[in-house]
Amino acid sequence: MATHRPEDRLHQSFADIARLLERHRVLESLAHQQDSPRRDLVEQLQHRQNVAELGKRLRVMHAADIAHVLEGLPLDDRMTVWREVAAESAGDVFVEVSEAVRGSLIEGMEQAALGEVLTRLDPEDLAYVSAALPDEVRARVEQRLEQSERTIFEDSIRFPRSSVGYVMTREWVEVSDQHSVGDALVSLRRLDAMPPQTDHLYVVDVRHVLRGVVPLPVLLVSEPAVRITDLMREDVVTFSPTDEAKSAVGVFERYDLVSAPVIDNRGKLVGRLTVDAVLDVLRDESSLQALRSAGLSEDEDLFASLWDSARNRWPWLAINLVTAFIASRVIGQFESVIQQLAALAALMPIVASIGGNTGNQTMALVIRSLATDQIQPDRSRRLLTKELSIGILNGSVWGLIVGGFAVIIYGQIGLGLVMTGAVVLNLVIAAAVGVLIPLGLHAAGRDPAHGASVLLTFVTDGMGFFLFLGLARVFLV
Amino acid sequence: MATHRPEDRLHQSFADIARLLERHRVLESLAHQQDSPRRDLVEQLQHRQNVAELGKRLRVMHAADIAHVLEGLPLDDRMTVWREVAAESAGDVFVEVSEAVRGSLIEGMEQAALGEVLTRLDPEDLAYVSAALPDEVRARVEQRLEQSERTIFEDSIRFPRSSVGYVMTREWVEVSDQHSVGDALVSLRRLDAMPPQTDHLYVVDVRHVLRGVVPLPVLLVSEPAVRITDLMREDVVTFSPTDEAKSAVGVFERYDLVSAPVIDNRGKLVGRLTVDAVLDVLRDESSLQALRSAGLSEDEDLFASLWDSARNRWPWLAINLVTAFIASRVIGQFESVIQQLAALAALMPIVASIGGNTGNQTMALVIRSLATDQIQPDRSRRLLTKELSIGILNGSVWGLIVGGFAVIIYGQIGLGLVMTGAVVLNLVIAAAVGVLIPLGLHAAGRDPAHGASVLLTFVTDGMGFFLFLGLARVFLV
Repeated sequence: MATHRPEDRLHQSFADIARLLERHRVLESLAHQQDSPRRDLVEQLQHRQNVAELGKRLRVMHAADIAHVLEGLPLDDRMTVWREVAAESAGDVFVEVSEAVRGSLIEGMEQAALGEVLTRLDPEDLAYVSAALPDEVRARVEQRLEQSERTIFEDSIRFPRSSVGYVMTREWVEVSDQHSVGDALVSLRRLDAMPPQTDHLYVVDVRHVLRGVVPLPVLLVSEPAVRITDLMREDVVTFSPTDEAKSAVGVFERYDLVSAPVIDNRGKLVGRLTVDAVLDVLRDESSLQALRSAGLSEDEDLFASLWDSARNRWPWLAINLVTAFIASRVIGQFESVIQQLAALAALMPIVASIGGNTGNQTMALVIRSLATDQIQPDRSRRLLTKELSIGILNGSVWGLIVGGFAVIIYGQIGLGLVMTGAVVLNLVIAAAVGVLIPLGLHAAGRDPAHGASVLLTFVTDGMGFFLFLGLARVFLV
Repeated sequence: MATHRPEDRLHQSFADIARLLERHRVLESLAHQQDSPRRDLVEQLQHRQNVAELGKRLRVMHAADIAHVLEGLPLDDRMTVWREVAAESAGDVFVEVSEAVRGSLIEGMEQAALGEVLTRLDPEDLAYVSAALPDEVRARVEQRLEQSERTIFEDSIRFPRSSVGYVMTREWVEVSDQHSVGDALVSLRRLDAMPPQTDHLYVVDVRHVLRGVVPLPVLLVSEPAVRITDLMREDVVTFSPTDEAKSAVGVFERYDLVSAPVIDNRGKLVGRLTVDAVLDVLRDESSLQALRSAGLSEDEDLFASLWDSARNRWPWLAINLVTAFIASRVIGQFESVIQQLAALAALMPIVASIGGNTGNQTMALVIRSLATDQIQPDRSRRLLTKELSIGILNGSVWGLIVGGFAVIIYGQIGLGLVMTGAVVLNLVIAAAVGVLIPLGLHAAGRDPAHGASVLLTFVTDGMGFFLFLGLARVFLV
């Protein structure tokens, strides 16, 4: 049997393609160095052979694997490979690649070639990629759709990108509530194949309202004469197309679902949410969250152009700069104190840094709990009390250690006491903002992770400097 | 039909239980206030009624939902609810709750009651939770297993926790390669039900070697006389029990799998990896990564005891403190310079902060690309060159802005120039360490996210202070 270890095969493909690309680059550079207008025929031949081999290698690969390879290649190599992807799989690859990489493919392609790829997509996939398309291309492709396809297309783009309606499929297998198992099997035999990840037949009445579902294994072991409604399960987890796609992740996880029907508010079947879509949503969510908390507003292609990459980092750099300046002005107010006791300048970053660290720990826990929907409104006060207590406890323990070091290094007991006091107070503030910032963002309907870290560090830095230098002014100079 | 919006129902359950717990608390506190040894009979009755109602509410809930509710409750409420979970579902709930919460349940239970719950688990689930059990409980339960169960149990705990063998199920439906569709259907009818998330029958030969798979939909529409081997697909994605479970996430995502056979190195079928296990792995991975990068070494129950929570945060606080002290000593070397120009103390955190910010942006991208397996070794130099260029570009743009502000505030052109220079150099260093730290950790076989942020901030803080104060000493004083 041709069982295969998928990772091994993918790595092998990647290595093969890298080798072909290397040869491609060598041959290209040789061609450019050639002074004579008559290029060496042998080299031309080698070049063509190499490209043909690349195309051959790609033809045996799964579209998702080609997409993965494209994502891992620098821009020029990526276009070399993309040009050799066979026309029949180019559409699938185009849908599979990440959004950032899809943008780079669109930029690098002629409009005619792009149109060619797009015409091979079904209307649902077309809707999925349409946001990234240049307006004129999108309009042209849309015009070419037949009436039935256009209906699906327009229905698909109607829902916001974060909704179940956007990620659901419009392919499912349904059966009338009047039918027997035998009738159902006859109509199933008429289908070429069932849509991927079909684990249930959906039972609908004449008005197309979902009445229940029949698991395939149950159908498999039932006699033809049995009525479908006798096999049907009526306690079904359903979604509405306007539900947040994110919220489906927890539901699929808790109930171990493979797919779930999507119904409108009259109970009519309008789509099906499959676990592969849910897996994508979770993957995107978690990787975007990591990028966001580091201050990248958007997904970034690792090999995007220098200028695009540099600019992608500006919005948060600007915010960071403003907050750093404000913290700097806090210090500025104490310049005379620092002039009298330069040790303060050396010690103040410690107070700020330990505050930022504990605040981020608290915040990571709160954000995680919000994401898994585990903080009920009436629990937040209890949580705040607990985190404040930890702040006092850890502040005392670590404040004394920090203060002790300050006494050892600078030989001033007063300096140590001021430092201990500043650490305790800053950790309490860090705990408070660590709880309140994500809860506040969540209550305001925002993503609690987005911007939270910058906001928190701003508070813990500013307050760290203010508390330490303020206490020093009062007690030391 | 009883279709239901799962989130709504869960919120309703949570609200109902919260109400019952509130009443529970009121009744408990009344009972404690009672001075007379003869407690009020009416109150006792109310109390018992309330507990009974709680039990009734829990009996209609899915085990996964009860687990979710337990995770969202403070310790005392959690134990109140846990005591009322019916014996027949307690085992499932115990398996479903997060590891941290399972630990709190174990701590709060009598050993006898714990043993009672554990005896209801099948050997696979028992293996799954066994790591958390006190040694004597585990030994006692293990002794009580029958021989066949013990074999499964011992096979399950043999694999490391991060492996496919640990998260796979040992339940699948197999059929002999000698059978026809009719034979297969006869043996299927003998099963009570198929294991959850069964989408294929596994075809094995007499030696129990996997020969191929038959999708259920194909079986459904085939004539009884057809041979199984004629329907079978031989190009199957398989895993080995020693594969990293993490690596399966990308494979399930790329090929949209529902389940995949796990085979040993002789090709024999030993298990089945299902998408719900993969979803759990991805969920754990992404939430743990967020916690780790904030400096929490372990998962933490939001309502764990104060002392446990406080201590969970110590290891990284200690590391943070050491790095902050080293950065502080860097500043300490320049105390005489700061004494002469206190403005330096106010401006130096800006240089450090902007370096930390850009470094973290670079690092988040590199970590994400490593996680999705998109950095090939020969690409890393190219990536480094690109990030260094962005560092120079963004350093110049933002360095000039920062320098300009310094000139405006302090009226010293020299100070502005020193600041611009320090920002450019620090951003280049930040880009270099932002690429090299995660690549280095990855090459050393470590999780690239773990500790990376602390290490990076240490470098960007230390270098930020050193560059700025060093340039100031050379050019300004």
